[in-house]
This record gives sequence, structure tokens and C-alpha cells, in this order.
Amino acid sequence: MTPDILAALNWRYACKAFDSSKKISAETWQKLEQSLVLTPSSFGLQPWKFLVVQDPELREKLVPHAWNQRQVADCSHLVIMTVPKALGEDYIDANIARMVEVRGGTADALAGFRNMVAGFRTGLESKGGLETWAKLQSYIALGQFMLAAALLELDTCPMEGFIPAKFDEILGLEASGYTTAVLCPVGYRSADDRYASLPKVRFEAKDVIEHR
Amino acid sequence: MTPDILAALNWRYACKAFDSSKKISAETWQKLEQSLVLTPSSFGLQPWKFLVVQDPELREKLVPHAWNQRQVADCSHLVIMTVPKALGEDYIDANIARMVEVRGGTADALAGFRNMVAGFRTGLESKGGLETWAKLQSYIALGQFMLAAALLELDTCPMEGFIPAKFDEILGLEASGYTTAVLCPVGYRSADDRYASLPKVRFEAKDVIEHR
Repeated sequence: MTPDILAALNWRYACKAFDSSKKISAETWQKLEQSLVLTPSSFGLQPWKFLVVQDPELREKLVPHAWNQRQVADCSHLVIMTVPKALGEDYIDANIARMVEVRGGTADALAGFRNMVAGFRTGLESKGGLETWAKLQSYIALGQFMLAAALLELDTCPMEGFIPAKFDEILGLEASGYTTAVLCPVGYRSADDRYASLPKVRFEAKDVIEHR
Repeated sequence: MTPDILAALNWRYACKAFDSSKKISAETWQKLEQSLVLTPSSFGLQPWKFLVVQDPELREKLVPHAWNQRQVADCSHLVIMTVPKALGEDYIDANIARMVEVRGGTADALAGFRNMVAGFRTGLESKGGLETWAKLQSYIALGQFMLAAALLELDTCPMEGFIPAKFDEILGLEASGYTTAVLCPVGYRSADDRYASLPKVRFEAKDVIEHR
């Protein structure tokens, strides 16, 4: 049976208040985490690391740098999507190595693919676009993650309202070369969240879809 | 019953060859189109128009500007995600008007929200980031769309390999202020696509997920 995608999308909303007493079960979390791992990306490069923060103290430290939005502290699992600021060629090689590991064959046999991706990378770098490109990929993860969560009856709140430099500092990302791209708290909506019952606002299909 | 998200994600792959004889039914397409309409975006601004191209002649004209990738012509429905190059304040007002239409109330009552979004917009503009921000939002749509399609047993191929200026010209977007952000052909895989049976390559969870 086909899952009711539209019901899930109509049910979801940007959760403003999580019920901090409700935690995602280990079994359900495992599915959601694996869905993140399976996220598609251009060239399969997977230019990301997903931090999953449950430590209450660490989350409280982050709140003031997310405009005091309590979702950061009150959700069940705080997913912080981070991306490399500069995607070096070593990233391509790690991907090639993984391809060989999973599919067999040799890195030499993938030299054509490697050079194509490296050429693309150099083009991006010359336009100063490496970090932006990685961020775009992380938004694929964000979009997929929110739908996956909704299908599992979990609430999310995509958040761009935070100070990346402060997050990077508190999370100790600076030495790693990664930076915070976007946040997605996940968990269960509070019964008190009045936003949950507001009608969803979307433009009409005729205003955003054009057939040719 | 919870849908099997992981099965869908493991089944999907970047389809290299579509079966051009197979078309998505009107009923299934309607669901997928509505899922696009329901895509979340920052502030609910929905900075996008989705072009759905079925005209074979128009698609053939696009192929050479997508590195001759045949998916553009051979899929059932070619989804072209476009975004405004400059998101003006009129975009915010259109969203406010829609909020009033759907939820009632007045635009005046939403002045605080409007000013907050306008302030955010001005900040983006001063950093030259309006188009990039809109593109990020369109990648939320892309991520959600690919999972929705997979759950409906439809194949997709996310494509960044195309020349936006040529696409914009052929699609007649220049006067509209929109530009092509990303492509997502959708339809049914060809029985001949050898990529369909290759094992999926993803980094191990321990390499992309970090718990804190």
C-alpha cells in the first residue's frame, strides 16, 4: 500500500514548541538516522556530517545563539547539519575509496569519474562556491529528513535562525573544517503549541506549478 | 502502518535511463504535484516556481544544454525547479496576503512578522545572497520530492549538470526574473539501466553521524 504522503505533509508544520518529556524511541531513531545516511547528493559526494545532540547542557548553551528558540533544547533529538567549508580533493578520493569498498573494482578504473568530479570541484572553487554547494546538498538532506520524520509521526522545525560562528565555536567544529549549515530539531509537538492547529499556508498549485 | 522509508530509499537511485514509453498516471502525478506545493520553506516564503515539462520538442531542445543527458527527454515528467533571482519585498507581501486569505485576520496584524522577514531579506540582499537563499529552499523541495517519488515507486534523477542561462533562455524565463536552480526528471527506470542494480554507495553511519 502506498503511504499517505499528503496526509503526512498536511500534518507536519514547523513545530514551535516541543514536549520536552517525550523522547523518540531507539528503534524509531535508528530508522530516521539511517534515512539521513541514505540521502542522495550530487556525485554521491555526501559533503556533510550530521551532529545529533541530546546532551541537555550543550543544547542550553546553543539556545542563546539561535535567537532563544527553545526548540533547540526542548526537542528529543537536535540534528545539526554541518558541511565542509572547503571541499578538498581528498573528499573525492574518500568517496572513490568507498565506491571500491562497496562495489569492488579499483580506484584506477574510476579515474574518469574522479577527474570529472575534480574538474567540477575546481570550477566551483574558482567561483568561491564550495561551501555554498555543500550547503545546497545539506538542504536535500533537510527536505528528505522532514518528510521521513512526518511519515514516522515525528515533528520537526527547520531552523536557519542561528549564528553559525557561535554554533561552530560551541560545537568545537573550527579545527574540523566543518561549519553549521542548518538545524532540524525533531521530537513531539507540545499540546500547547497553538501553531499546530493553524491552517497551513501554501500558494495555490496554479501559482507555483506551470505546465509546459 | 508506518511506510517503509528505508526500503524506498534503498530502492531509489539516480536513474540514468528512463523508459520513455512509461508515463506517470494522472492520479499519481496529482499526488506528487501536491507534495511539491506542500514543501516547507523558511518563513513559508515558497520562493519558487516548478515547471513541469512534458512537451517532447521543448525537452529535446533542452537536452544539449544538459550535457546531452537523455533523462531530460526520456522521463515521464521533467520537473524544473526555478527560483527568483532577486526576491523583492513584493514576495513577502504576496505571502502575507495568502496568510490572510487562508487564516483570516488582517495584514496589519501581521506587520511584526512582515518586518522581521523584510529585515532578514535586507540582510541577505546586502550580502548578495538572495538567489542563493532561494536556491537553498528549492533543494528542500528537491529532497522531499525524491523521497515522495520513491514512496510512489517512481524514479528520479536529480540533475545539476546543465547550463542555467541556456535553460532560462529556452524556457523564456528571462523576463520573469526566475532562473533554473535544479532539475528532477521523474518517471520509470528502463530495464536496461545497469546503474539500477549497482549496490548503493554511502559512507557508514559512524562516518557521517556524530552523537553528542
